[in-house]
Amino acid sequence: MSTLKTLRGAALFAALSLPLAAAAQPRARDLGIPFDGQPGPLNAITDVAGVSVGETTLISTAAPGHEVRTGVTAILPRGADTLRANVFAGWFALNGNGEMTGTAWIDESGQLEGPVMLTNTHSVGVVRDAVIAWRIRQGKPDASGYWWSLPVVAETDDGYLNDINGFHVTAEHAMAALDGAHAGPVDEGNVGGGTGMICHEFKCGTGTASRVVTIEKQSYTIGVLVQANYGVRDTLRIAGVPVGQELRQHRVWSEADPVRGDTGSIIIVVATDTPLLPYQLKRVAKRAALGLARNGSFAGNGSGDIFIAFSTANAAATQDAPLNTANFLGNDSLDPVFLGTVEATEEAIVNAMVAARDMHGQDGHYALAIPHDELRAVLKRYKRLNTP
Amino acid sequence: MSTLKTLRGAALFAALSLPLAAAAQPRARDLGIPFDGQPGPLNAITDVAGVSVGETTLISTAAPGHEVRTGVTAILPRGADTLRANVFAGWFALNGNGEMTGTAWIDESGQLEGPVMLTNTHSVGVVRDAVIAWRIRQGKPDASGYWWSLPVVAETDDGYLNDINGFHVTAEHAMAALDGAHAGPVDEGNVGGGTGMICHEFKCGTGTASRVVTIEKQSYTIGVLVQANYGVRDTLRIAGVPVGQELRQHRVWSEADPVRGDTGSIIIVVATDTPLLPYQLKRVAKRAALGLARNGSFAGNGSGDIFIAFSTANAAATQDAPLNTANFLGNDSLDPVFLGTVEATEEAIVNAMVAARDMHGQDGHYALAIPHDELRAVLKRYKRLNTP
Amino acid sequence: MSTLKTLRGAALFAALSLPLAAAAQPRARDLGIPFDGQPGPLNAITDVAGVSVGETTLISTAAPGHEVRTGVTAILPRGADTLRANVFAGWFALNGNGEMTGTAWIDESGQLEGPVMLTNTHSVGVVRDAVIAWRIRQGKPDASGYWWSLPVVAETDDGYLNDINGFHVTAEHAMAALDGAHAGPVDEGNVGGGTGMICHEFKCGTGTASRVVTIEKQSYTIGVLVQANYGVRDTLRIAGVPVGQELRQHRVWSEADPVRGDTGSIIIVVATDTPLLPYQLKRVAKRAALGLARNGSFAGNGSGDIFIAFSTANAAATQDAPLNTANFLGNDSLDPVFLGTVEATEEAIVNAMVAARDMHGQDGHYALAIPHDELRAVLKRYKRLNTP
Amino acid sequence: MSTLKTLRGAALFAALSLPLAAAAQPRARDLGIPFDGQPGPLNAITDVAGVSVGETTLISTAAPGHEVRTGVTAILPRGADTLRANVFAGWFALNGNGEMTGTAWIDESGQLEGPVMLTNTHSVGVVRDAVIAWRIRQGKPDASGYWWSLPVVAETDDGYLNDINGFHVTAEHAMAALDGAHAGPVDEGNVGGGTGMICHEFKCGTGTASRVVTIEKQSYTIGVLVQANYGVRDTLRIAGVPVGQELRQHRVWSEADPVRGDTGSIIIVVATDTPLLPYQLKRVAKRAALGLARNGSFAGNGSGDIFIAFSTANAAATQDAPLNTANFLGNDSLDPVFLGTVEATEEAIVNAMVAARDMHGQDGHYALAIPHDELRAVLKRYKRLNTP
Repeated sequence: MSTLKTLRGAALFAALSLPLAAAAQPRARDLGIPFDGQPGPLNAITDVAGVSVGETTLISTAAPGHEVRTGVTAILPRGADTLRANVFAGWFALNGNGEMTGTAWIDESGQLEGPVMLTNTHSVGVVRDAVIAWRIRQGKPDASGYWWSLPVVAETDDGYLNDINGFHVTAEHAMAALDGAHAGPVDEGNVGGGTGMICHEFKCGTGTASRVVTIEKQSYTIGVLVQANYGVRDTLRIAGVPVGQELRQHRVWSEADPVRGDTGSIIIVVATDTPLLPYQLKRVAKRAALGLARNGSFAGNGSGDIFIAFSTANAAATQDAPLNTANFLGNDSLDPVFLGTVEATEEAIVNAMVAARDMHGQDGHYALAIPHDELRAVLKRYKRLNTP
Repeated sequence: MSTLKTLRGAALFAALSLPLAAAAQPRARDLGIPFDGQPGPLNAITDVAGVSVGETTLISTAAPGHEVRTGVTAILPRGADTLRANVFAGWFALNGNGEMTGTAWIDESGQLEGPVMLTNTHSVGVVRDAVIAWRIRQGKPDASGYWWSLPVVAETDDGYLNDINGFHVTAEHAMAALDGAHAGPVDEGNVGGGTGMICHEFKCGTGTASRVVTIEKQSYTIGVLVQANYGVRDTLRIAGVPVGQELRQHRVWSEADPVRGDTGSIIIVVATDTPLLPYQLKRVAKRAALGLARNGSFAGNGSGDIFIAFSTANAAATQDAPLNTANFLGNDSLDPVFLGTVEATEEAIVNAMVAARDMHGQDGHYALAIPHDELRAVLKRYKRLNTP
Repeated sequence: MSTLKTLRGAALFAALSLPLAAAAQPRARDLGIPFDGQPGPLNAITDVAGVSVGETTLISTAAPGHEVRTGVTAILPRGADTLRANVFAGWFALNGNGEMTGTAWIDESGQLEGPVMLTNTHSVGVVRDAVIAWRIRQGKPDASGYWWSLPVVAETDDGYLNDINGFHVTAEHAMAALDGAHAGPVDEGNVGGGTGMICHEFKCGTGTASRVVTIEKQSYTIGVLVQANYGVRDTLRIAGVPVGQELRQHRVWSEADPVRGDTGSIIIVVATDTPLLPYQLKRVAKRAALGLARNGSFAGNGSGDIFIAFSTANAAATQDAPLNTANFLGNDSLDPVFLGTVEATEEAIVNAMVAARDMHGQDGHYALAIPHDELRAVLKRYKRLNTP
Repeated sequence: MSTLKTLRGAALFAALSLPLAAAAQPRARDLGIPFDGQPGPLNAITDVAGVSVGETTLISTAAPGHEVRTGVTAILPRGADTLRANVFAGWFALNGNGEMTGTAWIDESGQLEGPVMLTNTHSVGVVRDAVIAWRIRQGKPDASGYWWSLPVVAETDDGYLNDINGFHVTAEHAMAALDGAHAGPVDEGNVGGGTGMICHEFKCGTGTASRVVTIEKQSYTIGVLVQANYGVRDTLRIAGVPVGQELRQHRVWSEADPVRGDTGSIIIVVATDTPLLPYQLKRVAKRAALGLARNGSFAGNGSGDIFIAFSTANAAATQDAPLNTANFLGNDSLDPVFLGTVEATEEAIVNAMVAARDMHGQDGHYALAIPHDELRAVLKRYKRLNTP
C-alpha cells in the first residue's frame, strides 16, 4: 500500500467517524436493554479521570481485492501525563490464543508504562515499535529517563473482513491514534482497532461502558473498553436472554460450517481510579472473564481472550522513586469493584454489537450487525426490555 | 465431640441420606429449568466411566450449642484403580480465598495422584493426613511404589451453620467417604462436604451434572461436581433469568447487613474421559469459571473459587514409566469440551440449590432452600420454563 | 504412638536442643568458608526485627523399629503480634513436588496471615489444623475478627530416617513450636522440622543466615531460614568449590543406586524489613532459587523446592482496613535485596549442613554429617578457605 | 538508515563473520575451563537434530554518531520443516524485564509454532511482523492452513553500544536470518541478535553448548543457545571461581557508577530431542535459571531473563490433528534432562563471553572482552583449569 493510499484510508476514517459521533446513534441501554449497576456520565472508559482514547480507522480499498478494514486504538491511562507516571496494572489471559506484548514486565514490575494499544493480529509489531518511536519523540532518554521500552500492544484478528496480510497499518497510524487520544465520549462499533471485528457472528468492534461504585462513602469509577471479536451465534445471551438461539440470520461461520468453533478473540481493558495494588488489579482483570461469560462466551480454543486492568490512583507512587507510598483498598472492600467490572464488561460488549454497522470486506465476506428492532422484539418477549 | 457422638453423626447420615436417594426428589431439569447441551444418563460426574463418589454426612448436635452440619466428599478418578494409575490433571483458582492442597504437584507433574477430597475449611488437615493413612493401608510403600503423598483436599466454609471450630470431622469420616465411594447416582444437596453450604443466600451444597459431546464422531463425557457455597442473592441468575432480584425472602446476609459481600466459596471438580494433556485440563478447569458466571457469581473477595479438572483417559500413560505414550485431542478440537464444561457447571450449581433442604444450625442460624414452586413461577414469567 | 511416647519425644527434644545452643558449635563461616555480603548480628532470620522462631524436635523410638526423627518449626513474622497484623508476602515453586498450604490465598490477597510452619510431608495436615485451633485459643472470632483460616504449612520428607508413616507429630507439637517461638539465635541442624533431613547426601536440616543491605542510606535486613533436604552428592558446590566431587564417603543414595535422582526437597523462608509490595516479594522468593543453585541444586523431579518471602514493614497497612497506605521500594532499588537473598540462601544451606550431626534412623538408615575438617581441607586446596 | 546502508551492514557482517568461523577461535573448554557433563559433537544447540540457526549481524556506521551494533538470530526448531509441524514448548520468566512475544499462546496451546527470533529490544516489532510476512511467503493460508500467527520474538538491550533508537533492524534482516538458518556449527560472540551485548561488564553476545544424557539406555541431547547481556562484574563466577572479584579492569558500569545495578538481560533457548510434554518443557525452561545462577546472576531488576524450551520429538503429534499420540518421559526420569540443561546453560554463557571480541560503539562506549590469558591465570590459581 502506498503512502497515498494510507492517507486516503485516514481521510476516509475522518469522513466516516465524525458522522458516527454526530449521529447520536443509540447505545445498548438506549434500546431498552436492562443492565445492573450505575454507569458514569459517559458510560465509557473515559469516565475514569485522565483516561484518553484515540482511534485510527482504516476503511478503504488498497488495491482490487485488497479491502482494508482495520485500525488502531490507543488508550492512555493518564492522558498527556502517561509518560510521566506509570499506573499499577495487572493482566489475565482467559485463553491465550492472542498477543499482548509487554505482559512479562507488567507481572514483574506491577506497572504499566505508557499506553495500551489495540490493533489487528498481524500489525502488533509495527504498532509496538511505533510506540517506542513515539516515546522517543517526546524527549531524549537520559540518565534520569528511560533506557528501553516494552510497549503493551494487543490484538484481535480481523482477517475475515480485512486484508490482514497486506499489513496496512503503519507506524503513522499508530502515532495518529496516540496523538489523537482525548477524554470525553468514545466512538464505538466499526472504529479503531475494532473496525473489522465480528462477535457472536454479528458485526462488532469497539465498545465501552462504566460503573460508579461507593466504598466507605467514597465514589470510584470503573471503565471498560473492549475490542470484541469472539463467539458463536448459538451461545449469545443478552441480558440473560438466549438471543443467539432466536436471531438466526446470517450466521457468519456456523451457517457454512456448523462445527467451526469460536475463532475470534476479545481484548478487555479495565481502567479505574480505585486505589489498588498490582495484585488486586490482576484480580480485577480476572473478573472481566465473568462479564464476558454472561454474554455467552465459552472462551473457545481459537479465541485470544486477554484482559488488562490498571488504576490511575497513586500517580506519585508509580514514578519508581527509591521509596514510595501507595494507597490501596483492603481486600475485604473489593467486591463493588469486582461486580462493577463484571457489569461494565457485560455492557461494553453489547455496546460494541449495538454500535456496529453491517460491513462488506475482503474476499466478498460480509458481516451483519445485530438488527436493533429484532433484538428489542426478542428481549420484549422474554420480559427483558425496559420501556423508555 | 466424643467418639460416640461422632458415630451418632455418621448414623444420622445413613438415616438421612438413604431416603434422599429413595425419594426421587426432583432435580433442576425435572422442575422445567432449561439448560443447553446433552447430559449423560445420570447427569452426574459418575457418567464418566470409573469415577466414584463417596460422601460422609455429619448432622448432629455434638453438645448443646454445637451443631454439626458438615461432612466429607471423596472423588476417586479411577474408582478402585485410583491408586494404581494417576490421571492427567490441571487446576485453576478464580479467586484463591480457599485451600486446595496438592496443587503445586499437579502443576509440576501434570498428574493427580489419588482422590480429590472436599470438606469444610477447618478440617482440610485431618482429611489430608487421613488420605495418606488410607493409602498406606492399601499396601506398604516399596522400591517400586510411592515414597510420599501430596493429597488433594479442598474446602468451603460451613461456619455459618456448622460448629466449624469444633473440628468434628475425623480421619475415620474421611476414610468412610473413600471406602464408600461408588459409581452410579450421586446424592446432592445437604450431603458430604456440602452438608452445611449456602449459595446466593439459599441453602445449597453438593451438586452434579454432565454433558456428552461428539468430536470427530467419537462421543466423550464431561462430568462436574460442585461443592457450592458462594454468592449473594442480588446477582443470582438461573437460566439467564434474574431470579435473585425476584425471590427476596430470607436473604441470609444481605437482609441483616446490606453491604456484606460474597464470603462463600465454590469448589468445582471436572472429570472427563476425553483424552487431554495436563495443560489442556488446566484450560478446562478455567472454563468452570464461565459456567459459574452464568449463575451470577462475581467471585467476591471472600470466595474461594478453585477448580480442578482431570481426564480418565490414558491410564497406561499415567503410571510414570520411563517412557510413556498418551493420546490427546488437538487444540482445535477442544471447543465442545469447553462448552460442555460451561454447561455442566451451570447446571450442577442449580442442581445443588434445587436438591438442598432448609437447615437450622449453629448459633440459631438458618438457611432457606430455594422454593421450587416460586422458582418455577419466576422462570415461567420470563418464558424460561420448559413444560413437562 | 501413645500420648506417653509423644511426651517422651518432647522431653527428649528439650534435653537435646538446649545443649545444642549451649555448645556454641561452629557455623559455616566459623570454619572459614567464604561468603559474600554483610550478615546481621545473629546471621539468622531473627535479625529481622519481630521474626520469632520456635522448634519442636522429636527424636525417640516410638516402638521397636519405629524411630522418630522429625519435628515442627514455627516462624512468626511479627512475633507476638503475628495474629494482629498480616505481612505482605509472595511465594514461588521452583519444583512443586511438595506442599505449601495456603498459597492460593497468598497469591490472591498478597498477604500471609499467621505463621509459616515447617514439618515432615505426612504431618502437614495435623499441623495445619493445629494452627487454626491455636488461633482460636487466642480469642473467639467475631464480627470484626476472622471467620476462617488458611494456614501456611510446608514440608520436606524425612522418611529415610524417620518413621514418617507413624504420624508422630501431633497438634500439641505444633502448638509447642508456636508457643515457644522467640527472637534471638536459631538452633540449626537436626532440629525442628529439619530434624531428619538430608542434603547432597549429607545429614542436613534447619539452617539460617542473614544479610544487611543499604539502599539510599537506609539499612535493611534480609533473613533466610531453610529446611534443607535436597540434592545429590555429585553436584554439591560450597563457595563455588566442587566439594561433592571430592568428598565421596557414604553417599546415601548414589552409592547403592547410582541413577537414583534428587528426591529430597527444600523449603526456603525469606523474611525482610524492607518495605515491599506482594509482587515484589514474589520476586524475592524467586531469588532463593539462585542461592540454592550456587550450592549445586538442579531441582530434581523429586525435590519439592518451594519458597516464601514476607516483609515485616507496613504493619499498619496489613490489617485490611477499607483504605490503607503502604510504603515500598521502587523496582529500580531492589537489586541489593535480590542479591542479599541469593547470598543469605547460599549461606543458610551451608549452615544447615555444618550444624547437622550424624544420625541413625528408621530401617537401619544412616546419614553422615559433612566432616568439618575434610571440608576445610578441600576448600583450602581450592584457595577458598578464609584463615581465622 | 537507507537501504544502501543496510546492505553495507549486511556486507560488513559477511566480511566479519566468515573469518570468525574460519579462525577456529577457542571456545571455553578449549581454554581449559572445566565443565561437568558430556557435550554433543558440536557442543551447540544444533546437536539437536533438525535445529537450525541463522544470524544476521549488523556492524556499521549508519551516520556520524549512529553506530549500528545489532542483529537478528533465528532458531528454527525443525529446520526446513518448522512450518509443517509445531514443537511442544514451555517458557519461564525468571525476571520479566524483557519481551518474549507469543508466550500466551505457548502457555495455552503447549506448542511453539514457527521459529524463535532474538534481536534488540526496540526491534522486536519489526522482526515479529516479518516472521508473519515470511510465513505468508511460504504459501497462502487456506482452509487447511493457518489463519493467524503469533510469532515468538525475544530481545535483550544493546543500547549501550548500538544506536538502538535508530531502528536499524529491518524485515529483510529478519528474513535473512530465517532464510540463512542452517545446521552445523553456530557462530558465537558478537553475532546475530547478540552482536552488541555485554555480560558481567565484559563484551558478550551469542553462545551455545549442549549435553548428551542417557535415560534407560536411550541417548538424548539438550542444546542451549543464549543471547547474554546480563550481570555485574562483582558476582561473576566461572567454574565456581569468583572471577569477577579478580578481573577488575574496565567494569562498564560499576567503575563509573558503583551502585548501578544489573540492567542487562539474557534470553535462553533450550532445545532437546527428549520426548517431553509441554508442562515438562516449562520445567526444563526453569532449570536454565539454575545454570545462569552458577555464573553469578542474581536476576537484577533491570534484567529481562526469559527462557524457552522446546522438544523436537513428537513431530506427528504437533500438527493439531483431531486426535494425536505423543511420547513422553515419566517425571521420575527427567533428572538427567534437568541437570543437562543446567550444565549446558552454564557453559553456553561462558562460551558467549569467550567468543566475544572488544567492541567500540555508540556515544564512545566501549566493552572489553574477557581476556583469555588472565582468565586462565585466575582459574589456575584456584585449581580450576584443565591442562590441555
